Amino acid sequence: MASDLSHSQAPQAETVFDRTRRLFHIPDGVIYLDGNSLGPMPLAAADALQRAAKAEWSEMLIRGWNDADWIGLPERVGARIAALIGAEAGSVMVGDTTSVNLFKVLSAALAARPGRRVILSDSGNFPTDLYVAQGLIATLGQGHELRTVSHAEMEAAVDAAGEDLAVLMLTQVDYRTGALYDMKSMTARAQALGALTVWDLAHSAGALPVELDACNADFAIGCGYKYLNGGPGAPAFLYVAPRNQASVAPALSGWMGHAAPFAFEHDYRPAEGVGRMRVGTPPILALSALEAGLQAWDGVSIHEVRAKSIALCDLFIELVEARCPELELITPREGAARGSQVSFRFEEGYAAMQALIARGVIGDFRAPDVMRFGFTPLYISEREVRAGVDILAGIMDNRLWDNDDYRKKAKVT
Amino acid sequence: MASDLSHSQAPQAETVFDRTRRLFHIPDGVIYLDGNSLGPMPLAAADALQRAAKAEWSEMLIRGWNDADWIGLPERVGARIAALIGAEAGSVMVGDTTSVNLFKVLSAALAARPGRRVILSDSGNFPTDLYVAQGLIATLGQGHELRTVSHAEMEAAVDAAGEDLAVLMLTQVDYRTGALYDMKSMTARAQALGALTVWDLAHSAGALPVELDACNADFAIGCGYKYLNGGPGAPAFLYVAPRNQASVAPALSGWMGHAAPFAFEHDYRPAEGVGRMRVGTPPILALSALEAGLQAWDGVSIHEVRAKSIALCDLFIELVEARCPELELITPREGAARGSQVSFRFEEGYAAMQALIARGVIGDFRAPDVMRFGFTPLYISEREVRAGVDILAGIMDNRLWDNDDYRKKAKVT
Repeated sequence: MASDLSHSQAPQAETVFDRTRRLFHIPDGVIYLDGNSLGPMPLAAADALQRAAKAEWSEMLIRGWNDADWIGLPERVGARIAALIGAEAGSVMVGDTTSVNLFKVLSAALAARPGRRVILSDSGNFPTDLYVAQGLIATLGQGHELRTVSHAEMEAAVDAAGEDLAVLMLTQVDYRTGALYDMKSMTARAQALGALTVWDLAHSAGALPVELDACNADFAIGCGYKYLNGGPGAPAFLYVAPRNQASVAPALSGWMGHAAPFAFEHDYRPAEGVGRMRVGTPPILALSALEAGLQAWDGVSIHEVRAKSIALCDLFIELVEARCPELELITPREGAARGSQVSFRFEEGYAAMQALIARGVIGDFRAPDVMRFGFTPLYISEREVRAGVDILAGIMDNRLWDNDDYRKKAKVT
Repeated sequence: MASDLSHSQAPQAETVFDRTRRLFHIPDGVIYLDGNSLGPMPLAAADALQRAAKAEWSEMLIRGWNDADWIGLPERVGARIAALIGAEAGSVMVGDTTSVNLFKVLSAALAARPGRRVILSDSGNFPTDLYVAQGLIATLGQGHELRTVSHAEMEAAVDAAGEDLAVLMLTQVDYRTGALYDMKSMTARAQALGALTVWDLAHSAGALPVELDACNADFAIGCGYKYLNGGPGAPAFLYVAPRNQASVAPALSGWMGHAAPFAFEHDYRPAEGVGRMRVGTPPILALSALEAGLQAWDGVSIHEVRAKSIALCDLFIELVEARCPELELITPREGAARGSQVSFRFEEGYAAMQALIARGVIGDFRAPDVMRFGFTPLYISEREVRAGVDILAGIMDNRLWDNDDYRKKAKVT
């Protein structure tokens, strides 16, 4: 309790990240390098859940829609997310899942480019993005084509698609390699051909400065449970550029996207602005947790986060390459060319990751052989990166991964 | 604490509903006749939320998918709901919203009936159902027609549509009047023409015995936050008849509906069974509350619930008609012809409902002039029905609704 006034050295000034670290619960003995998959629990999120249940739902009952302003909750959360992704307030809708939101914006984009046939994407895109496009194409039955190429081939593929290109659909940061697309130049390249862009921000929102408006992006979607720390299966978000909002016709036209939901009219009339992309009743409990989690960003500059994230990733790469020669880096070495994660290829990567997790260092595995580590400055420090590498090096040096217990596949990997 | 042993009468045996009443939090002084809009909080739901946050998310982090079996949560909740709606276990998917789930089953049904043009529904259907159909039709651009007629005209309209009928889309219990469709006969009538049926169970699941399999229904959807008490904006559900599961092609094809989500394949392959109707990552916090809320049904017969619900509604109708002649009943008088709610028309219904709510009797209002009351035997007793009518009669007798404060419209009505 008493501070040591006799201490001869001035105490180090507390950094913004010392403060944000205390906003999260990280279990004792855990070094959590998987916030890119599921962010840890902000203490405020647990409090918010209890408040939403015990003070709002239980006491207000149906009156909570007005008395706790549940009806305004999606918009409040949307404004917080907009501020993190370079989007004008009022251009972000929150609710549904990333996949469902992709369906919404992709169908809207195709409808806005009739006669154009090609959706171009990355062959390494996160599978759900490709699956959603495939399902939409089959449903429309209008002869659209999902064309996928590698990151390296993308610029040429955009140009080759020419005026047949309807939509360029890219995930800004590759979920496996961490490679980063240049949103501004890729958007301009597609738009020069008259196409629209759909950006998936699953691995960039909250990880690095995203500038949707400045990049002239058309549509974007993203995830609430990774860098935004909203909890497992948290509500997702979508963005529609202000210039497109008045013309977007939602394929998923539900009552919450109606201009007057409580007039109970017979025919759909879209709400003004991005609100028309809402569909059903908003998930209040989950949104309450997400809203509280987003408070961790108050007073934090995403540019500071980015600078520290690059430094932590640089350090991790340097230490792992020096100590674990069996691991092959597949993430761009240059900080500006990657997101906030580092991945290594190792044939026994699954077992090695299980050995790591068993020792408290939590990363994840992506088939067929990728060990993936996320770096999240809000709650991860240089000290933890060094300690994590010590444990990883111990596993590699002693072949501790060579154990059949670690080769048993769990349901979720 | 001490029981009165000298009491001369034997204590009344506790009923199943005395027991279930204790599973819910109902605020002091409230008579809650709006569980058909938002069910009250089961005490177990608040506990489950805390457990999901503080024991699972915060301590297990990403490991919760396996260690807390989050990945199996949608299926566990689906099995509980299936048991309440007469559906084979494994035929109910839980997640997304009612509106999104309607889009899924309606698009699947249309795809299964190529060349047929008409979606037939009730002109008094809940608006989101009509809006979703309108949005789907516009998106497909294949010349489908949404045709709506009144409940009284429905049988003739089915026959008149003939072989042009693709889908009969009905809400089993009308959200305003409470009128109940005969699922078995309407399904048979539509199927006799080769059409498919989509049933919205928003106001019937948990309110009365629903027999999807026995009625040979094709598809159904429903809501988690009304009679199932899952919390505001709880995950919804959908049903696909076992005979249709292998052929359904989901328009919303996301990674969680893939046969091998963690193989990260390039192309979509639908999962076996109803699981292919999943789309994105399941909402674990909200599902945890819903799962806990559904435990209130353990050991409860839906037939007993139905019998008491009819008795409570009968009593309410009798007392209100005797004491409040200004109110006009718009709900079927015969118990077998209605759901678990009673609605009255009154020109100043909005203000009268506000006056009631101000005195602790919570029902709701549906534009333009409907006062709606839900009866939910799990936590509402005859004593509360009588007390609620006393308060309503006092408001009507003394024109307490005639107050401009009660005429001010809230955002959500």
